[in-house]
Amino acid sequence: MKVYGVIMAGGGGTRFWPLSTKARPKQFLNLSGKELLVNETIDRQKELVRREDIFIVTNESQAELMLQETKGRIAKDHILAEPAARNTAACIGYAAMELVRKYEDGIMCVFAADPHIRDEAEYTRVMKLAVRAVEETDALVTVGIRPTFPSTGYGYIKSLPVEGKPWRAVEEFVEKPDAATAQAYLEDGGYAWNSGMFVWKASTILRYFKELLPDIFACLERIGEAMGTPREQEVIREVYPSIPKISVDYGIMERAKGVLMLEGDFGWSDVGSFDSLDSVRQKDGAGNISSGETLLLDARNCVVYGTKKLIAAVGVEDLVIAEGDSAILVCPISQAQRIKQVVEQLEKEGRDRFL
Amino acid sequence: MKVYGVIMAGGGGTRFWPLSTKARPKQFLNLSGKELLVNETIDRQKELVRREDIFIVTNESQAELMLQETKGRIAKDHILAEPAARNTAACIGYAAMELVRKYEDGIMCVFAADPHIRDEAEYTRVMKLAVRAVEETDALVTVGIRPTFPSTGYGYIKSLPVEGKPWRAVEEFVEKPDAATAQAYLEDGGYAWNSGMFVWKASTILRYFKELLPDIFACLERIGEAMGTPREQEVIREVYPSIPKISVDYGIMERAKGVLMLEGDFGWSDVGSFDSLDSVRQKDGAGNISSGETLLLDARNCVVYGTKKLIAAVGVEDLVIAEGDSAILVCPISQAQRIKQVVEQLEKEGRDRFL
Repeated sequence: MKVYGVIMAGGGGTRFWPLSTKARPKQFLNLSGKELLVNETIDRQKELVRREDIFIVTNESQAELMLQETKGRIAKDHILAEPAARNTAACIGYAAMELVRKYEDGIMCVFAADPHIRDEAEYTRVMKLAVRAVEETDALVTVGIRPTFPSTGYGYIKSLPVEGKPWRAVEEFVEKPDAATAQAYLEDGGYAWNSGMFVWKASTILRYFKELLPDIFACLERIGEAMGTPREQEVIREVYPSIPKISVDYGIMERAKGVLMLEGDFGWSDVGSFDSLDSVRQKDGAGNISSGETLLLDARNCVVYGTKKLIAAVGVEDLVIAEGDSAILVCPISQAQRIKQVVEQLEKEGRDRFL
Repeated sequence: MKVYGVIMAGGGGTRFWPLSTKARPKQFLNLSGKELLVNETIDRQKELVRREDIFIVTNESQAELMLQETKGRIAKDHILAEPAARNTAACIGYAAMELVRKYEDGIMCVFAADPHIRDEAEYTRVMKLAVRAVEETDALVTVGIRPTFPSTGYGYIKSLPVEGKPWRAVEEFVEKPDAATAQAYLEDGGYAWNSGMFVWKASTILRYFKELLPDIFACLERIGEAMGTPREQEVIREVYPSIPKISVDYGIMERAKGVLMLEGDFGWSDVGSFDSLDSVRQKDGAGNISSGETLLLDARNCVVYGTKKLIAAVGVEDLVIAEGDSAILVCPISQAQRIKQVVEQLEKEGRDRFL
């Protein structure tokens, strides 16, 4: 069965503010110094899915920007525009319905637009096994990440080996653990990080929607009936905002039977905030990660991201210094999580033009 | 005799980089949040000199900007453009010659464009006494600043009281002292900071040029002969760059006899760098001095100067964060003197567009 890619690019993430903004979320950042995260995600699929078989689901307000910034990688009619953000179940259901209406069916590989993956060859190998698992079993398949440290920031997937197969049988999806539990998971060896990568047949996931999320399925059916007709956009705009907000993990994966998992160990990082940039970018001899025009004079262990202006960092340590289009942030790396507070404060004060 | 003002605005100072640049030196900064330093200097003379009797000597390359930024305070023909920076003797000689050629003579009050003075009433009172001293004695008169701490950054003037007069007799100009000497000067009470403020008759200072700096006087005479003729600019461009570079302190004041001094205690500050901004601007409750759009979240004792962009400073202490037109500086306040190094480094690397 033919393989399609579905990239979920709905994130509005504020954790890279002021580099990322509402108008230009994280997937449009060039954190690696090579390409925008979304383009790296598209390009990463090259051994797995043909470019013309990739779809991107994104917010309507960013559809035009997505078309521009992907620079010919993705055709306009492969950018599925959500009139409202309704979490991942809606997004995946929409894409599955599109595939079924357009191509009758297909194997659909779902990935987020904005993680970084160091070892693309290994990534491709694992994803191909996931596709094989779908071909052989018609199961819902996910790719878990072999933990490299006791992270409390991800959900975990508990699984057991399947004899004679490269995949594993999922026992349980578990919530983000506390530190002690995360340590126990790491030592146990039977737990992987839930990375939000999925492979399944479009028809199969829609069957699960019908069974487990019938309200959403009803919405998807109304959208599906309008697809390819002149009323398509109108119906989507009408129906979409009423789709219940639920994640595919919570709505389907945790409740489905016979879910399979491939374990991946290919240097995956969700690049969640400034303190994880070392996964995408080399440090210099003094431990600094920098981008753009900079002058570092006795700066140590800093993250310095300039865009338009030169950033001179002199005699400072352990700081994030980031220049966005309309704002500049200076913050200890250890307090990078407080960016959320900054954004909330600016919202509260009505200074939205900086967000 | 009529009183004229001469503002020396030749400084290229890099100590406020990136707020100040070669194209826009310190005198054009609004450090107080009220007005540009040069305009504050002009406005400060209001009880002393009529605006139309003020001249500004500045570099040719900044004459146009000066005309714009002083916003009608100064007429175009009162901006004396130096084709090259030749130190303060040249600058003062040029202005004195202009006064003598235009008005035959006049009392000339000379001040730098960029210091800050807190107590303007007291400043005016002292300057009027300096004018009176010139009227009564025809001496070279300077205004020394009563030291408030043992500064090693200024030269000092040693003086003795003159009986029955508000002025003092200068004994000696002394170079910038070491810390112990500065402390001794402070305790002695007979030493004042050399602030570079002078009052004298234009004809008198020219007589000193003739006697003590005959090479410069010869140049000034050539310029003076061309003044008011069509060849004025041409002669100035030809002669000026060859004027010996020497300060009026070194060339005349230290060698002249009978120099008088008024002691000033009016909150003078030369606002030499980011670490002296507390003289021009109020700190907030957490010890921060800020300008422009800022968001300070647990920031303490920082100097935060934004221009175009919002600056969010989170959880940082004792930092200078300054956004200029083309560059951003982040540096501990205690290392503010290292800005010179940054500027030198950028020059060395040919990144002049940021200077």
